[in-house]
Amino acid sequence: MATIEDIAKKLNISKGTVSKALNGASDVSETLRKTVLETAVELGYSRGMRKKGAKHLCLFIKNMLYTEPEHFGYDIVIGFRKAAEPAGFVVSVVPLDDPTQKHITYDAYMLKNNYAAAFFLGLSLSDIWISQLQTSSTPAVLLDNYIQANPTTCYVGVDNSEGMDLAIAHLKKQGHRCIGYLSGALDSYVNQLRYSAFFAALRKYNLPDGHHLAGNDFFFSECLQKHLPALLKQKVTAIICSHDLLAHTVMIYCQELGLRVPDDISILGFDDLPLCAYTAPPMTSIRQDRTQIGKSAFYALSSLLAGVPISTLLLHTQLIVRQSTGEAPASPKKLQALDLPQTK
Amino acid sequence: MATIEDIAKKLNISKGTVSKALNGASDVSETLRKTVLETAVELGYSRGMRKKGAKHLCLFIKNMLYTEPEHFGYDIVIGFRKAAEPAGFVVSVVPLDDPTQKHITYDAYMLKNNYAAAFFLGLSLSDIWISQLQTSSTPAVLLDNYIQANPTTCYVGVDNSEGMDLAIAHLKKQGHRCIGYLSGALDSYVNQLRYSAFFAALRKYNLPDGHHLAGNDFFFSECLQKHLPALLKQKVTAIICSHDLLAHTVMIYCQELGLRVPDDISILGFDDLPLCAYTAPPMTSIRQDRTQIGKSAFYALSSLLAGVPISTLLLHTQLIVRQSTGEAPASPKKLQALDLPQTK
Repeated sequence: MATIEDIAKKLNISKGTVSKALNGASDVSETLRKTVLETAVELGYSRGMRKKGAKHLCLFIKNMLYTEPEHFGYDIVIGFRKAAEPAGFVVSVVPLDDPTQKHITYDAYMLKNNYAAAFFLGLSLSDIWISQLQTSSTPAVLLDNYIQANPTTCYVGVDNSEGMDLAIAHLKKQGHRCIGYLSGALDSYVNQLRYSAFFAALRKYNLPDGHHLAGNDFFFSECLQKHLPALLKQKVTAIICSHDLLAHTVMIYCQELGLRVPDDISILGFDDLPLCAYTAPPMTSIRQDRTQIGKSAFYALSSLLAGVPISTLLLHTQLIVRQSTGEAPASPKKLQALDLPQTK
Repeated sequence: MATIEDIAKKLNISKGTVSKALNGASDVSETLRKTVLETAVELGYSRGMRKKGAKHLCLFIKNMLYTEPEHFGYDIVIGFRKAAEPAGFVVSVVPLDDPTQKHITYDAYMLKNNYAAAFFLGLSLSDIWISQLQTSSTPAVLLDNYIQANPTTCYVGVDNSEGMDLAIAHLKKQGHRCIGYLSGALDSYVNQLRYSAFFAALRKYNLPDGHHLAGNDFFFSECLQKHLPALLKQKVTAIICSHDLLAHTVMIYCQELGLRVPDDISILGFDDLPLCAYTAPPMTSIRQDRTQIGKSAFYALSSLLAGVPISTLLLHTQLIVRQSTGEAPASPKKLQALDLPQTK
C-alpha cells in the first residue's frame, strides 16, 4: 500500500506538495495535480485513501435523461439512492461528458474527488473510460455494460434474451410469422445483446430468419425513412423496437402511412416506460423494473467494496400486454396502397 | 389467496382434515395428504402460509459431495449458512433423490415441509423438478442452472465464459496453438456452457477450432480411454478439463503414458478445488469462490422472497497459475513413442 511519502519520493517533491495536490489546494498547478493523481493511482495509493472511511459514491450518467419521472434513468437513480443513502453513503449524480474522459483517467477522477465507487448509466462501447475499466481498480457497477475479467467491475441490467423471447413468443401466439426489428445504434452493448437475442428467438420459435428483418441506426430518421419501409416491403405483420421511444415513433409513422395498429401491424417496445400507458393505442412492452435495477446496483457495488467479485446481476423481464399488439392480419395490407417514402 | 376452507370445499372434506393433512398428522392417509398438498399448491395456498413467518430454507443437494472441506459443495453450503443463519433463517441440508422427485412435486414438497424457499446444488437438466421449476411459485435459487421467465427463480454461479477465456488466453501466451478439451456429460447446464465457451474462446484467440478438439462423457473411463487418446493424436499440447477431478485423472493418465506435465503437455482444471495445490505437479485451475457463491445465493434467495425478480447472479472467475501448465513444447512428443490404448 503506497503512502504520500512514496508519491513524494517518486516525483521528487515534498510530502506537503503531494498532500496539497491530493486535497485540491489552489496553490498547486493543474499540471502538477494531474501528475500527482496519476502517480498515486499508479502506486496504488487510491485504495489506502478509500479505506480511511470514504463513503462517497458517484453515479455517472451519459446519453440518458433522468430528471423527470417519465425519463428512463429516473427510477434507476431513485432506486440506487434509496438503497445507498440509508446504508450511510452519499451519492453524487454526475453527468459525464467526453472532455472529462479525455482530460483525466477514471481512477484518477475517483481519487481526486474521493469517491469510493461508481455506478455508470448510459456508457457506450466507444467511451474512453469503458476501455480504462478493463484494468481499473476503483469498484464500478455498469448498467448494461459488461467488463470481462476485472474483479472490481459488475454488469447489472435485465435478462435481455428472456425479454426478447417473451416478445417473440407473444407475437407468435397471436399468429405473426414475419416479424421485424428496429434498433438503436449497435455501438451500445445492450443494443447488441437485444439484436442477437432477436435472431436467436426467431430461430428458437422456427420463424423466418435473416438480417433483412432487422435495421439499426443511431438516428430515428434513418430507422423511419430507410429501415421501416424496408421491413414493410418484407410484409412483416409485427415490429419489435429496441426501446419504447423508438417504438412510439414507429407507431405514429405507421399510422401516418395509413396502417392501423394493431389491426394491420403490431408494435412492441422494450423498457416499459411510463409513456407506454399513454400512447394511442397503449403500447405492449417488455418491462425492466428500473427501481429494482437501481437497488440491485447498490447491492453489487457494496459487494465489490467488500471484495466480493460479482460479475453479473440480471433481473427478470416481464411482458406487459397492452393494445399495440394483436392478432396477425389474415394478409398484410397491400403495400401498393401505402404512401411509402423512397428509400435512399 | 386461498384459505384452508377453500381447500376443504374443493375436496369436499372438513377443514380439520385439511389442517391435519397440512401439518402431517399420522391419522391422515398418505394418499389424502398428497391430494391436499397438491390442491393447496394449485389454489395458491402456499404463499399465504409462507407469509405467516415461515423462516425455513431447504438446501437440496444432488450428485455432489459436500461433507468434507475438500468436497466441491462444502464451501458453498458453509457460505450459504453463514449468510442465512445470522439473518434468522434455519437451513436444512437435504440430499435429493429421483424417487422423491417422482413421488411429489417441488411446490408440494416445500409446502408440506413448510420451507419458504430452496437453494439447489447439482441438478442436471434431466431432473424432474427442473421442468417443474419453469412454473413453480416457491422461490428457488439454482447453482449452475438457468430457468427462463419464472420470476421466482434465480441462477447463481460463476462467469464461465470469462473463466474459459482466461484459460485459453493463458495457454496461448505460453505458446500453445493446439488445445483440447475434455468435459463431463453435456446433460448438465454448466458443462454445456463451458463446452460452448471453449469453442468461443478458441475463435476469439484465432486458434484452431473444430469439434474433434473436444470430448465429453459422464464416465471418466470414456474420457481417458477414448477422448484423451483422440486428442493426443491431434497433437494437442494442452488440455483443459471441465473440472479439477477430471483434470487430475487426466494428468495421472498422461504421466502413465510417459508424458511429462507440463513439459510435454499442459493440463488445466476448472473450479480450483483444495486438491489442486497437492497434485504432482500442482494444478493450474480456474477458481470459483465457492464461499461467496453460497453467500450470494442467500442474497438472491432473500431478494426473491422480497419480490425482487433476480434472474442471474454471477461471480468473476480467477486464473490460479500453478505448475501443470508451461511453455508449449517446440514439437509435441512423438506419438509413436506413446503406448496409446486402442480406441473403441
